Amino acid sequence: MTDQKPATAAVLIIGNEILSGRTQDVNLNYIAKGLAGIGVRLREARVVADVEKEVVDAVNACRAAYDYVFTTGGIGPTHDDITSPCVAKAFGVALHRHPEAVAAMEKAYQPGQLNAARLRMAEVPVGAELIKTSVTAAPGFRMGNVFVMAGVPSIMRAMFDAVKHSLRAGPPVLSRSIATHLPEGTIAADFAALQEAYSAVDMGSYPFFRQGKFGTSLVLRATDEPLLAKAVEDLRAMISRLGGDAVEEPVP
Amino acid sequence: MTDQKPATAAVLIIGNEILSGRTQDVNLNYIAKGLAGIGVRLREARVVADVEKEVVDAVNACRAAYDYVFTTGGIGPTHDDITSPCVAKAFGVALHRHPEAVAAMEKAYQPGQLNAARLRMAEVPVGAELIKTSVTAAPGFRMGNVFVMAGVPSIMRAMFDAVKHSLRAGPPVLSRSIATHLPEGTIAADFAALQEAYSAVDMGSYPFFRQGKFGTSLVLRATDEPLLAKAVEDLRAMISRLGGDAVEEPVP
Repeated sequence: MTDQKPATAAVLIIGNEILSGRTQDVNLNYIAKGLAGIGVRLREARVVADVEKEVVDAVNACRAAYDYVFTTGGIGPTHDDITSPCVAKAFGVALHRHPEAVAAMEKAYQPGQLNAARLRMAEVPVGAELIKTSVTAAPGFRMGNVFVMAGVPSIMRAMFDAVKHSLRAGPPVLSRSIATHLPEGTIAADFAALQEAYSAVDMGSYPFFRQGKFGTSLVLRATDEPLLAKAVEDLRAMISRLGGDAVEEPVP
Repeated sequence: MTDQKPATAAVLIIGNEILSGRTQDVNLNYIAKGLAGIGVRLREARVVADVEKEVVDAVNACRAAYDYVFTTGGIGPTHDDITSPCVAKAFGVALHRHPEAVAAMEKAYQPGQLNAARLRMAEVPVGAELIKTSVTAAPGFRMGNVFVMAGVPSIMRAMFDAVKHSLRAGPPVLSRSIATHLPEGTIAADFAALQEAYSAVDMGSYPFFRQGKFGTSLVLRATDEPLLAKAVEDLRAMISRLGGDAVEEPVP
């Protein structure tokens, strides 16, 4: 017997810098695309401040609700990096200095450079497994169904790529996007009827303004390739019936 | 007597396109910067799927916890636009067709073009006030402490700018950022002590890689300008004591 239900996930972006507007998050989009590619459903994301109670509550809410939780940010050496102790608290376990992480960091730093602040980056909740990458000696970690990753995008990507293979993959979610210069309001009724006819295809409508012209991207997503192809065919027929143009465009 | 406590806020980004990875959100950053500028504290953001129960629950959780909630997305004419009925449901009121919205849309469309789908954009919860802009006839709305805005960035910005003046402003949060080529781990202990000494200044540390060199941006945020200036002076002295360079950089 195989579990046919797709795995679900949430992302927790931890950091005042996103909420203050200093930093534009780009990690969520990378994780979202990566999960779609392996058939894991990203159902929710939250941005939380560097405040213990808020991080602990968000970790506990999300790890109970979803199969996987991915956190980004807050695992560096400075006082505003509180993710690791918060995850330990959420799981009700202690933090400990992971010997393997210490060994890797001892190798990476010059003698005398591995100070107390840097050693904090070797501290993980008891029971956690390290997420190791070639881009930094300071690891991320997996604790239960929670994957704790760095906030710096290049490091986050390496950590996510390192754990992706370990997730319960399902059929990838395939996307096709048809652009038309018909406005959304002209398409809406027929498009809703098409969605009714294809309950296994998720259909979204996104207005755009390109090269001086308004238009609409109609995005269809499904795991069943032939069904998706049939829905796209029906969508093209619908657009043509409404007197519009239809051009397939790459899904970013 | 004036209420000295700064107002708090949350942002709800509503839309499958963010969670699927199709779209990179840029609205949160705009709202975050706008709120910081008028002294409203953005405490949380959530990205939720186009699923009624999830939107209703998120609206209710956030409107109870914060002074203001800003939603983006899901107020267009297509079947995946469910924000307005969800907000009505969250408040336990009916949706109605707002006469002023209908009138504005009648003016904007050619005769015969204002079909049922487009008229959905004139439906708001009973008791809601319209958020009108010059960029589109279809309005956003305010219901209680919840501001419902479009997802298209240009429209969202116009709507946010239209309501910003109505929020309870406080002293703006001022930010200063000092860049140094000292690594985070070298600064961490002294920087934590500086944070201890200035409880009214929020201090964050963000590593960077620029022009082939690693470094750290140290960001100090406070509403009290002289206090902030003094903390920056102490930060510069600290960096110099540690043998580092210090260059003030614009805060994005």
